[in-house]
Amino acid sequence: MSGERSAEDTVGASPTSEAKTPRTERGRRTLRAILDAAAAEFGEKGFHEGSISGITSRAGVALGSFYTYFDSKDEVFRALVRDMSAQVRDHVGPRVQAATDEIDAERIGLESFLTFVREHKEIYRIIDESEFVDPDSYRQHYASSVERIAKRLQAGAARGEVRADVGEVHAWAVMGMNVFLGLRYGVWDEDVSPEDVAATANEILRKGLAPN
Amino acid sequence: MSGERSAEDTVGASPTSEAKTPRTERGRRTLRAILDAAAAEFGEKGFHEGSISGITSRAGVALGSFYTYFDSKDEVFRALVRDMSAQVRDHVGPRVQAATDEIDAERIGLESFLTFVREHKEIYRIIDESEFVDPDSYRQHYASSVERIAKRLQAGAARGEVRADVGEVHAWAVMGMNVFLGLRYGVWDEDVSPEDVAATANEILRKGLAPN
Repeated sequence: MSGERSAEDTVGASPTSEAKTPRTERGRRTLRAILDAAAAEFGEKGFHEGSISGITSRAGVALGSFYTYFDSKDEVFRALVRDMSAQVRDHVGPRVQAATDEIDAERIGLESFLTFVREHKEIYRIIDESEFVDPDSYRQHYASSVERIAKRLQAGAARGEVRADVGEVHAWAVMGMNVFLGLRYGVWDEDVSPEDVAATANEILRKGLAPN
Repeated sequence: MSGERSAEDTVGASPTSEAKTPRTERGRRTLRAILDAAAAEFGEKGFHEGSISGITSRAGVALGSFYTYFDSKDEVFRALVRDMSAQVRDHVGPRVQAATDEIDAERIGLESFLTFVREHKEIYRIIDESEFVDPDSYRQHYASSVERIAKRLQAGAARGEVRADVGEVHAWAVMGMNVFLGLRYGVWDEDVSPEDVAATANEILRKGLAPN
C-alpha cells in the first residue's frame, strides 16, 4: 500500500467531463489548484456567497484558465463534490488494504476518514450543501460510499469474517456511524483521537457483525 | 404509554420565545397551523425560495396572525427546527418506554423514527438546511438527540443490560446509524419495512454493546 496518493490520482478520477480533462502536467496542476481553491471558497462562504473570482484569486490563476475547465459556478461546485468524494475514497481505500480482516478494515477506514476530515473540515459543509445545490451529486456521494462498504462487508462474509447475511442495511448503518463520528470528532471537536474513536466504534462492529 | 401525543404537547415545548407562547386554545391551534405550513413550505421550496406569504396562505391564516408569533422568516424557520426536533422526541420518547431492555429501546426508537420520517419526509431537508440558515439549531438538534441516546445507554449500563463503559462515542455511533437509515429507508425509498430495518440494525447493537 502506497500510503500517500498524489493529487494527480484524484484529478485522474476526472471531476470534469472527459472533453475537459487536462492533457498536460501543467494543466493538471491548474485544475487541481482550481478545485482546492473552490473547496476553500465554498467551504468558507458557502455556494451562494462564493464566487468564481474568489476561486481564481485563491488559486492564483487567470479567469480564462477557470473557463478552460468549467462553464459556471454550478459546474465547478458539482466537480468539487465529485472530487471530494474521490479524495475520501483515495485517502481511505489504500489504507484499508493493510487490514488483517474485514472488521479491522472498517477500523482503519474510520480512523483514516477521521484524520482526513480533520485536515479537510470543509468537506462536511460542501457535501451537505450539495443536497440543495446539486442533489444528484449528494445522493451519488453517499450511494458510492455505501457501495464500497457493502462490497467490503460481503467480501468479509465470503471469508467467514463477518455474518453471512451482511447487506445494504448493515452498510448504511456503518456509513451513518462514520459520518456522524466524523462530524463530532473530526469537524466539531478534536477532544478524542481518531485512533480511540475508531477503536471504540469498531468494537461495536467486531461483536455486532460476528459470524453466527 | 399514551401512544399518541396531541399537537398541543409539541407546541407546549415552546418553539417560540416565552412571551409569544399562545395563551388560548385557539392561539395554540393557529401557531400549530403556522408551523405545519412552514414545514410544508420550507420542505418543498427550501428556506431561500420559501416565503411568509406562502406559509400564511398554506395555513389559511392572516399575515397579522403570523406576526403575532414570529418577527421574520428567519424566526419561523428557527422555531420550525426546534419544533421538528421536539416532534421527533415526542413521537419516539413515549414508545421507547414500552421496551423490555435498553437494546429493545433502541430498536423501538429506530423503528418509530423511521415511521415518523416516512410521514414527515421534509424533516431531513429542513434540519439539513438549518446547518446553513441557523447553525445553532442544527447543532442543538443533534446534540440533544445524542444526549437522549447517551442517557438511555447509561441507564441500561446501570441495569447491566449493555457494557458498563458506554459513552459519548457509542451514542454518536447509534445516532449516526439512525439518521442514515432514516435517509435511505425513510426518505429515499420504502422498499424495506421500518420493522425489518430496525431489527437488522438492532442485532448489531444487541451483540455489539453486550456487557463484557
